[in-house]
Formats: sequence, structure tokens, C-alpha cells
Amino acid sequence: MSSYDEIGAVLKSAQRIGVAAHVRPDGDAVGSLLGLALSLREMGKEVYAILEDKVPGNLLFMPEVGFIRQSDGVALDLDAAVALDTANQERLGDKTCACFAKAGTLINIDHHGSNPRYGDMPHVEPTASSTGQMVYELLKHQGMPITDAIRQNLYVAISTDTGSFQYPATSPATHEIIAEMMAAGLDTARLCVALYQTYPARRLELMRAMLNEMQFCSNNRIVSWQLTHETMVRCAMVPGDTEGLIDTLRMVDTVVAAVIFEDMPDGKIRASARSKDARVDVSAVCAKFGGGGHRLAAGARMKGPISAAAEIFLKELENEVRRID
Amino acid sequence: MSSYDEIGAVLKSAQRIGVAAHVRPDGDAVGSLLGLALSLREMGKEVYAILEDKVPGNLLFMPEVGFIRQSDGVALDLDAAVALDTANQERLGDKTCACFAKAGTLINIDHHGSNPRYGDMPHVEPTASSTGQMVYELLKHQGMPITDAIRQNLYVAISTDTGSFQYPATSPATHEIIAEMMAAGLDTARLCVALYQTYPARRLELMRAMLNEMQFCSNNRIVSWQLTHETMVRCAMVPGDTEGLIDTLRMVDTVVAAVIFEDMPDGKIRASARSKDARVDVSAVCAKFGGGGHRLAAGARMKGPISAAAEIFLKELENEVRRID
Repeated sequence: MSSYDEIGAVLKSAQRIGVAAHVRPDGDAVGSLLGLALSLREMGKEVYAILEDKVPGNLLFMPEVGFIRQSDGVALDLDAAVALDTANQERLGDKTCACFAKAGTLINIDHHGSNPRYGDMPHVEPTASSTGQMVYELLKHQGMPITDAIRQNLYVAISTDTGSFQYPATSPATHEIIAEMMAAGLDTARLCVALYQTYPARRLELMRAMLNEMQFCSNNRIVSWQLTHETMVRCAMVPGDTEGLIDTLRMVDTVVAAVIFEDMPDGKIRASARSKDARVDVSAVCAKFGGGGHRLAAGARMKGPISAAAEIFLKELENEVRRID
Repeated sequence: MSSYDEIGAVLKSAQRIGVAAHVRPDGDAVGSLLGLALSLREMGKEVYAILEDKVPGNLLFMPEVGFIRQSDGVALDLDAAVALDTANQERLGDKTCACFAKAGTLINIDHHGSNPRYGDMPHVEPTASSTGQMVYELLKHQGMPITDAIRQNLYVAISTDTGSFQYPATSPATHEIIAEMMAAGLDTARLCVALYQTYPARRLELMRAMLNEMQFCSNNRIVSWQLTHETMVRCAMVPGDTEGLIDTLRMVDTVVAAVIFEDMPDGKIRASARSKDARVDVSAVCAKFGGGGHRLAAGARMKGPISAAAEIFLKELENEVRRID
């Protein structure tokens, strides 16, 4: 594993730098990407901030989000490339991998335990709350620029990936970083309004559909929902609308594991699973279907139709939940 | 206003001490009450931790919650009494006021701006995130005992009153205190599961009813819900079940103010209002009906029936929302 000193030295000596994060970007992907990219730009570097997919609508408020370009698949002439929050290189996306194909050095900064330490300079901290927290520590310890826009992006990364400081990976360092950023002028309440109180009304429609259609099994220890094309059309759903919906299902006291199945445009089914008990490893279940993630939060893409995918996934999940019997 | 030094001196010299918080106790009331009461007990004081109402079911996991007794209305022989998180003395409840009637010194520790600084030693900090945060600062600065049970109770107080660190009163000090308590061994993730992921299934029933019955007005800037006796019976609701439900209504982007009207057992209607815009002061609206609170979170008790209460309250709230036109 490469140290922040080693990574900092490479970034300081490089001039053309690419920065990317995983497909279907979430708050930690976009926030850590912008946090690092904006700092490098402040340093006078030629920075390419790229993502395979569009930034979802609910994150378009993030400062300088327009700096991110969608990957076009053409190899960039880069001294260094940084993959952020991306558990394996393929999760960057095909076009993004092509953009990075000729990079001099591939740096891999991530907090997913399943990360195989790919690239020339991997730095993986499975105990870090978020990749946003790791980027803050990198910038701070290497004396790299930290502007208000960078603080805002890193706050979004940390806040979303910790479920607003509730998940177990939240550490004293997480809170200390937020305190430091606030003391430097960061307005967190405004960001929280944008993040958590600015959903389109159709979000409540989706939630209503979920509450009407959710199904309990395994003695009410598993709750699941099948989000179909029909519901998406009826609610005029756009990507990002489902973010965090699963937390509402998780709330129930008897529930140990929650999973949402979602029809994808390509006919595949996305399964997003959460566990509330460290003994129940949803990443192991997702791995059986070619997916992965963390013990308590993981996902997989499955073959349709959605009802068949749900049936075989739930069978495996029920086996996993039996661990706590 | 009395300083923490002055309050600390009185508490240290007193032997028989009563501690109470407001009627219909929430996380900050119970958490700050237990935080201070347990510290005083550790100091060898004779402590009476009392509340007018029962601790709601969702907070019964709080450590040492059994130390709290419901007020019986009989005056206690006290050297000092402390009112916590209680915006005016009446909000302690009639029996609790009677219990405190013969107390030598009444200390008033609170963060509500509307607090008239009642009692012999008021200490009101409207910028504090929570009374729990104030109790932590008092204990720390006066060198009073801080055990793990105290940390857990103060965490619950701070986390619930800041909406998990999202509300504007969250400050660098708030995060620093959490970091300090975690460094001392506090397990916040376990508490968050108990606080935010341990709702009875009927909570989702209530949420479904809310999403089916919510009403928008004032150009979708106000959303409201009337929680009737019928719905409570149908969902087998118990006190505490509605805690935080309003946050789901607040989420919608067009919404500036949200209000839930609730049938009370005595025939009155409880209005709980939230604002998302500092220019829209819901405490001013509640004050017109004899209530109060903060600019962004306030409540009132009104005359029924619920539909009539909603109509006149919403008329006033619509006027308030017009401030931002």
C-alpha cells in the first residue's frame, strides 16, 4: 500500500492528472472526486475530472459539479490517474478505463474492504468512513489547497456515506474533520437542506409505492421491495430518486436485512441490500451474483425478470440471515 | 444569567437535588435529564429525576432510564432543582412544578430562545444545538463525573435535537463533543440503530397513512397532515411513534413549512410545525395559539375539532410564508 506521502509526491510532480470514481456515482463518489480534482486544479494542474455516468439530479447542487465530464472512451495523455471510491477497476466503467489506459501512474484511493489493491499505488482503508474522509486527510497532510467548494464536496461525501454520521464506520476522526471544516467556515445546514430536504414530490410517491408494496419474509427479519418499470413510469422517476429509500425499510425493529430490486434500462435487475447486524454479510450474498460491497451495504446486477431475481436472491439472503439463529 | 461556575458551585454544595425536563419528553429532554442526574448521583447526591409524563416507548432503551420517576405532585425537600430543556416553567407540568415548589434554588438550563429566564439561576444559550450539549459542557467544565451511560444519554439528546447533525444549530463544538465522547469509548452506531432503526412496523403504517392523506397548499410551499384518532387506532399507535415523521414531509423541494395536526386524548389538537427557511418563523405562528418554540421548530395546543384547528392554523401559516414572496 502506498502512503499519502508517496501519493502526494506523485500528484505534486505530475502535470496532467485524471480523476474518476465509480459508475452510478453517489455522494461519496462525486464529492471525493470533486474534492481532489478542485484541489489539484488550484495547484495549477491540468485536471480531467471524469465519470462514466451522469451525476444524478439530486447531486447537481454540488459546487463546481460542471467541472466533471462524462468519459468519452478516448485515452488521455496523463502523468497520473486517480480512481476514487472504486472497489475494483472495472467499476470505473469501460470508457473511463479507456480514458485512463495510457496514464503513467494509476492511484487507487478507496475504503471498500473488498478492493483488491489494483493500480500502481493503492491506498485502501477499510475502516475509513468514506473516501471523502480519506481525500480530506490526504489534502490536509500533504498541504494541498482546501477551498470552501472543496469542503462542501467533501462534506457531502462524508455525510452521505455515513448516513448522516450514523453508520458504524463513523469515527472520532470523522466528527473532528467536520468540526475543522465548520470552524473554517463550512455551512453544513445549507448543504443538508440541499441533500436531505430537497426531494421532488415524486420521491414521496415512490415512498408511498414502496410502503404499499413492501414484503416481509423470514419471520419479518427480511423486508424487500420490487421497484418495477411500471412504478418508475407512474412516478416519473429519474436516477437518484431512490437514493436512501432503503433506509426507511431498514427502520423496522424486526428487520435484519433489507433489499430493493430495481428494473434497469438494460433489462437487468439491480439488487441493493443492507444489513443491520454485523453477523449478516450482504456482500457475501451479492458476491454469489457477481456483485460486492461492504458487509452491511452491498449490491449486485442480476438477470430478469424482477420477480425471478427477487426469488433467488431472497433465498440466499434467508440462508445468510439464519446465521443469527 | 448564571455561569456554569455558579451553577456548578450550587450543585456541588447541594445534597438533595431534583432534576426534571418538559412534558411530552423527547430525546433531548430525557437525555439531558439522565445525563445530569446520573452525574450528580455519581457524586453521592440524593437525586430525584422526575418527569410529568412517561418516557415514550422509543426511548426506553436509554441506559438507566428506570432512574426516572413520574412526578406525583408532592413537594420534595430539595436544596436545588434543575429544569432542563424547558422553555417556560409551566412546561415542566403541574405535578412537577408542585414537586419543585419547596426547592431552595431553581436552576434553568435551556437552549430555547423564547425562554423568559425563569428561576433563580437561568442559563439559556439559544445558539446551543441542544440542552444535552449544554449539560456536557457543564459536566466537563465543572469536572463532574462523565460515565459511559452519561455519554450515551447525552449522545441521544444531541443527535435527536440536531436531526442527526443536520439542523442549523449544529456547530463545530457539537461535532467536537461527539468526537471526544467517541474517543472515550462511546459506541454511537449501536445507539443510532436503537434510535433510528428500531421502529415498530406500525410506524411504516403511520407513514403510509401520512403519504396517502398529506395535503399541499400555498403553491406547494406548505404541506400538512391531520393525524386523527381513527388513524391512531387503526395503526395501534403509541406515544413516540410520530417522532420525526414530519421530516419526511419536509423533504419535498417546494415545501417551506410542514405541520402535523394530531388529535390529543383530552380533545385538544397538537400542532407541530417546521420551517426550512429562516425568514419563516413557525414559533410566531404557534405563539398566536398560545404555543412556542424555535423559529424553525415550534408547536401549539389548539381547540378541536382537528379540521377546524388545521384551517385556522394554516391560514396564519400561509400569511407567514408570504414573507418570502
